[in-house]
Amino acid sequence: MAQKKVVLAYSGGLDTSVTIQWFIDKGFDVVAVCLDVGEGKDLELIHDKALKMGASECHIINTQKEFAEEFVAYTIYGNSMYEEKYPLVSALSRPLISKKLVEIAHETNADYVAHGCTGKGNDQVRFEVAIKSLDPTIKVLAPVREWTWSREEEIEYAKEHNIPIPVDLDSPYSVDQNLWGRSNECGILEDPWAAPPEDAYDLTVNIKDAPDEAEELLITYEKGLPVAVNGEKFELHELILHLNNVAGKHGIGRIDHVENRLVGIKSREIYETPAAKVILTAKHDLETITLTKDIAHFKPVVEQKYTEQVYNGLWFTPLSETLRATLKDMQQPVNGDVRVELYKGNVTVTGRKSENSLYNEKLATYTKEDAFNQEASVGFIEIFGLPTKVKAMLEQGVAVDE
Amino acid sequence: MAQKKVVLAYSGGLDTSVTIQWFIDKGFDVVAVCLDVGEGKDLELIHDKALKMGASECHIINTQKEFAEEFVAYTIYGNSMYEEKYPLVSALSRPLISKKLVEIAHETNADYVAHGCTGKGNDQVRFEVAIKSLDPTIKVLAPVREWTWSREEEIEYAKEHNIPIPVDLDSPYSVDQNLWGRSNECGILEDPWAAPPEDAYDLTVNIKDAPDEAEELLITYEKGLPVAVNGEKFELHELILHLNNVAGKHGIGRIDHVENRLVGIKSREIYETPAAKVILTAKHDLETITLTKDIAHFKPVVEQKYTEQVYNGLWFTPLSETLRATLKDMQQPVNGDVRVELYKGNVTVTGRKSENSLYNEKLATYTKEDAFNQEASVGFIEIFGLPTKVKAMLEQGVAVDE
Amino acid sequence: MAQKKVVLAYSGGLDTSVTIQWFIDKGFDVVAVCLDVGEGKDLELIHDKALKMGASECHIINTQKEFAEEFVAYTIYGNSMYEEKYPLVSALSRPLISKKLVEIAHETNADYVAHGCTGKGNDQVRFEVAIKSLDPTIKVLAPVREWTWSREEEIEYAKEHNIPIPVDLDSPYSVDQNLWGRSNECGILEDPWAAPPEDAYDLTVNIKDAPDEAEELLITYEKGLPVAVNGEKFELHELILHLNNVAGKHGIGRIDHVENRLVGIKSREIYETPAAKVILTAKHDLETITLTKDIAHFKPVVEQKYTEQVYNGLWFTPLSETLRATLKDMQQPVNGDVRVELYKGNVTVTGRKSENSLYNEKLATYTKEDAFNQEASVGFIEIFGLPTKVKAMLEQGVAVDE
Amino acid sequence: MAQKKVVLAYSGGLDTSVTIQWFIDKGFDVVAVCLDVGEGKDLELIHDKALKMGASECHIINTQKEFAEEFVAYTIYGNSMYEEKYPLVSALSRPLISKKLVEIAHETNADYVAHGCTGKGNDQVRFEVAIKSLDPTIKVLAPVREWTWSREEEIEYAKEHNIPIPVDLDSPYSVDQNLWGRSNECGILEDPWAAPPEDAYDLTVNIKDAPDEAEELLITYEKGLPVAVNGEKFELHELILHLNNVAGKHGIGRIDHVENRLVGIKSREIYETPAAKVILTAKHDLETITLTKDIAHFKPVVEQKYTEQVYNGLWFTPLSETLRATLKDMQQPVNGDVRVELYKGNVTVTGRKSENSLYNEKLATYTKEDAFNQEASVGFIEIFGLPTKVKAMLEQGVAVDE
Repeated sequence: MAQKKVVLAYSGGLDTSVTIQWFIDKGFDVVAVCLDVGEGKDLELIHDKALKMGASECHIINTQKEFAEEFVAYTIYGNSMYEEKYPLVSALSRPLISKKLVEIAHETNADYVAHGCTGKGNDQVRFEVAIKSLDPTIKVLAPVREWTWSREEEIEYAKEHNIPIPVDLDSPYSVDQNLWGRSNECGILEDPWAAPPEDAYDLTVNIKDAPDEAEELLITYEKGLPVAVNGEKFELHELILHLNNVAGKHGIGRIDHVENRLVGIKSREIYETPAAKVILTAKHDLETITLTKDIAHFKPVVEQKYTEQVYNGLWFTPLSETLRATLKDMQQPVNGDVRVELYKGNVTVTGRKSENSLYNEKLATYTKEDAFNQEASVGFIEIFGLPTKVKAMLEQGVAVDE
Repeated sequence: MAQKKVVLAYSGGLDTSVTIQWFIDKGFDVVAVCLDVGEGKDLELIHDKALKMGASECHIINTQKEFAEEFVAYTIYGNSMYEEKYPLVSALSRPLISKKLVEIAHETNADYVAHGCTGKGNDQVRFEVAIKSLDPTIKVLAPVREWTWSREEEIEYAKEHNIPIPVDLDSPYSVDQNLWGRSNECGILEDPWAAPPEDAYDLTVNIKDAPDEAEELLITYEKGLPVAVNGEKFELHELILHLNNVAGKHGIGRIDHVENRLVGIKSREIYETPAAKVILTAKHDLETITLTKDIAHFKPVVEQKYTEQVYNGLWFTPLSETLRATLKDMQQPVNGDVRVELYKGNVTVTGRKSENSLYNEKLATYTKEDAFNQEASVGFIEIFGLPTKVKAMLEQGVAVDE
Repeated sequence: MAQKKVVLAYSGGLDTSVTIQWFIDKGFDVVAVCLDVGEGKDLELIHDKALKMGASECHIINTQKEFAEEFVAYTIYGNSMYEEKYPLVSALSRPLISKKLVEIAHETNADYVAHGCTGKGNDQVRFEVAIKSLDPTIKVLAPVREWTWSREEEIEYAKEHNIPIPVDLDSPYSVDQNLWGRSNECGILEDPWAAPPEDAYDLTVNIKDAPDEAEELLITYEKGLPVAVNGEKFELHELILHLNNVAGKHGIGRIDHVENRLVGIKSREIYETPAAKVILTAKHDLETITLTKDIAHFKPVVEQKYTEQVYNGLWFTPLSETLRATLKDMQQPVNGDVRVELYKGNVTVTGRKSENSLYNEKLATYTKEDAFNQEASVGFIEIFGLPTKVKAMLEQGVAVDE
Repeated sequence: MAQKKVVLAYSGGLDTSVTIQWFIDKGFDVVAVCLDVGEGKDLELIHDKALKMGASECHIINTQKEFAEEFVAYTIYGNSMYEEKYPLVSALSRPLISKKLVEIAHETNADYVAHGCTGKGNDQVRFEVAIKSLDPTIKVLAPVREWTWSREEEIEYAKEHNIPIPVDLDSPYSVDQNLWGRSNECGILEDPWAAPPEDAYDLTVNIKDAPDEAEELLITYEKGLPVAVNGEKFELHELILHLNNVAGKHGIGRIDHVENRLVGIKSREIYETPAAKVILTAKHDLETITLTKDIAHFKPVVEQKYTEQVYNGLWFTPLSETLRATLKDMQQPVNGDVRVELYKGNVTVTGRKSENSLYNEKLATYTKEDAFNQEASVGFIEIFGLPTKVKAMLEQGVAVDE
């Protein structure tokens, strides 16, 4: 009988390293997969470690460009903010990782894929639903959820099997990162009354340590996506990484949120999303002059539904596909420049302009250039207010002809 | 025949002063009404000026408490932000002013009420719809919309009639203010590419001029409303004025927004809402631990509809009444303390706690205290992901028993 | 050690009769509870059967009035139709049954409650979530889900224990009924291409067998609820039962629906809801003259959310409570008479009138009585159409003053 | 100076015939335009009449196919029902007529277009907003709204100018018709308590006069649109006209609705939409097996917004375009057959099937074929009910580990 083969989402950390050994103990051939989604890890090291742990293969895949253009882009179109706070950091990488796991499982004839998530987070759901939607016959394993070790038992197991213990083992935090941001939970963060300590952050400085000089940026958008900063063109993933760096220095993009997980609990999370904060703030502002009022007022309904779908791991579903097309469609006129100032945690828009601008100074102005027909308002108000007036007449016993 | 009598919403400014004279020219007896909604004007001066202009009566009414408790409070319940930016400053005072105008018209047996709005703003709609809903038989006059004078002609008329010309006549801005904030438009602000000059602001300092020391506040909420700051109890209107002062010094609450008016145009507005920014930021955070997920996710739908109703001048309608009751109802568990730090434009929540907190550390924790049943997730994911899996099976031709 | 005690939702059918024995085998003291929610069962027989099966107590509770007034009423307020088809029949009785189970558990000092649902329906969720929300410490057992018997094994067990086998054992259907309607599934109904056979129905005649004479009814509503039929006053539960009878004879209220269950599958269901069809059709019509446009257009949003909450078993949650208050509030002006004609499956409204009617013939008429100011439309259209015109001008390069 | 030229939407009725003369009196050259949108008028007669009235040209345009495929089709995708009752009959033809008016104005170098609507209906808004969105520089005239004649004065004018008085002048009704249906208002219909008399109807028989034999139809859908009836293929406009005929005989599609007009009043309308009733009922049913739950639950939100846009005359706007694309996208899997029975006003679906069916008998069944994992429900319920349980624990003072 052929050996069972499992394709494992491998991060290089303790959990997934132990997982390799655990699978080998169970008789599996382990194919490790590690994606570069812009978190800035040393991928060569990870590659070697996987093989050293006993994986038969380790695939390192640079997906930064694909991640930015096929996943993050729709988040920008949709101004995605789960519960008005969280710009979907981890929720975005899970479907991409799932897609690669399934592709490699097919290439290597593996019947199993595995992830290293625990049983109380959202990511287990995102992985498993995404994987099943890409291949409903594949079997998904979740060793960390399955074994019931305490932290101490896991370390004991690691030591027994000569699995290197990370130097930051003492770190109380659980971190996930990609180019759209960094999330952090656990430790002292589990107390929602406690202010997050400085060591919980990595991409941003404290606003009190930010430069005393403001920095002005000109961000250029085409069809809803940022394409240039200060006139310099970037590919989307590069632009995001660039802005993470620039805005992080100004202490921009820290988020402290107690969020409602899909699995029924509230959880306190710390996010850092410097680029996201700048890109979305400026883009939302550009929308105010380029979108019609009816789109501006309906788009949030689509945005909320889309954000929920992605948060809940439903990336590869017909509804999510349709909503992506809808959001992209709504962004076609969102072209132009936004001038922002970065200063000690603030992203201040100081100007916006667009060839598609629907703002019309001649209609808006109160000067003698005014082209607005103020007399029309009399008729407008009469009709707009008619239902309210009729209701009042009924209640006060006034007849229509009075 | 008895003389026609009009009750005029009087601000003391040039427009409404000219209006008094204009009404007198037309043979009206003018009853001036000026409300104190917390904008900090010299009301005695206004009172005397109205009479000097020829008004037969001038009613000065302190409505700060009523304004805060009957109007602003629901905006706090509803986290009201028109187009996610504008916390409904002027839109809140219009219905209250309308109510007082109608009351005084009834007391003084006046058949007419009048406001000083132009024909291209939202406020004309808000006044007229509110007034008609309170008394559908009353006649509403809008002299400024009716006369078709240029600014120069208006000043000429004022000079001819010895109407004092304000010293700030050169000011290009058009300002409205109450305790919930200050709005500003016109002049250079009509160019959305131009950064607002410093003289456009009054309640807030520039963030670059804000103190180098952060200020920590502890805000206590009861049923969705702030009741104390740093342990000191305040009535709502006092608390708001206090926080305007405290937060304004830290450069908090500046808003620069191109908004879609009810009357079909886009308009660039500058708002300053220091207290609102602090109160809503902290309250929204307190909601994250005190509201159930289903309320947290549906409330924004109610909020958006309510905000639109108020922005559109539909305060006195059955729908608005119902939505107010709904929002208030949803806020019953929003009790507790929020700790915020004010620093150079930032309002940073550093902790939140509540006796009604639904955040449960034993469920959320990743330590050995964990009370969450991770095995339940396996069943949850299987059922939650079933529709997606069935769809995939259909598309890939996989039978259910495989 | 005291004997374990379980309070069982007992229907008198095979499943719950077997359940009693099964619990006794496991050493439980069984307290049976059977509610009369208007399904017209012989309750004395059920009572005796429970005791005969070995239950130590059997509580028969007539809850028709409570069920109608505290549960069905809100469904009427909210025009509740899950997926625009299903008027929430079983979903309504589950929370009431849960409430009684918990009450009796407290009275009898039982630590356990039990229901007879399988593991693939909605009702297990509704029971368990409702029970936990009423007493989170109580333990819920679901024997039918737990034992893994085939139908044959269950019958074998019943025979061994002298449990009477129902005479309709051959019936392929699974039926649930209360005064708001009857649901039916299983058997041939599992094929969505097959027309439901006549024996699937019980409350309604086939429309082809309905009387050739139409029957006119005058239904009177107060605050959204029907209070009289043809001038005769009824309590709500009596009125519903009366209309089930009257409308059922005319073949009214058959529903054939493939619905999306909460547990991830699609299921084909047959419903009969004669009274519901008449009451909701007439009430919805009365709303057209008594509700303002803004309520009429927003209420469906509240309705959809409320219906989903109830369908999903979330009756006892803060959101559902708030939505009930909101819907009730919106129904205050829904007073008046609706004339309907019942004829071979049709409920045709032929007239509606109300003292709260906002329909105003003088505004609506095209005769010389017309009180509508048609000139106002010119201004209304100019402003209403302005955003669209500005967009067109931008696209076609037309300047504002042209 | 060149003569002013106006392109007039001409129906052949009294109003637009008088309008031609009125324009000639004012010195206009009149180009009449009459579209065939399936209302079954004698178009040759209309053509000749226009010329006889003095029009310089009369364009008769058969737009049935375009109307069905470019306008009605999206109504089918979107299950469009304004206020859950009115399937957008007249609202659909207005944008098409506007488009043709503007095209002919451009072809004939006319600076003016005109319609024959009064000042209190929706159609004036629909025409004017649509026309301005297609050419914001064109001038729109509305003579019937502008002249302020009573009915008697209009007839007097007609007689003076030898304009033929229609034989049905006594008809109290105001009718509009196209292939998607027929609307009727005025006369006795203005009394919402009065049952509509039989002469108010034209496309449908009274249900009491319908055949005693039911008629079974098999309707085949491709991507949301009906393409065949009983296996016979039709183009969409033909299929609709065919079903109007077939279903009208069975008394299907009568609607009696008091609706909220855009211009602030409630109006009682009678509609006949036999084909629409059949097509939408069957299609909605087909959606129950072909759409995923998440699409099925979100689509109504899109539907409601789209329907409102079209009702309000906002066909040619970016939001409406996007929503059309969204709705069409959601309909891609809606393929299959629906079997319906027409009988005395009833459209009863008796079966539905599809190659895209997501209904899975093996998951739904309660027989031994069951492939549903009932054990998964235990975990599902635990997590799904967790927030409710935590809330209850908080309220009842129960700690998590109890």
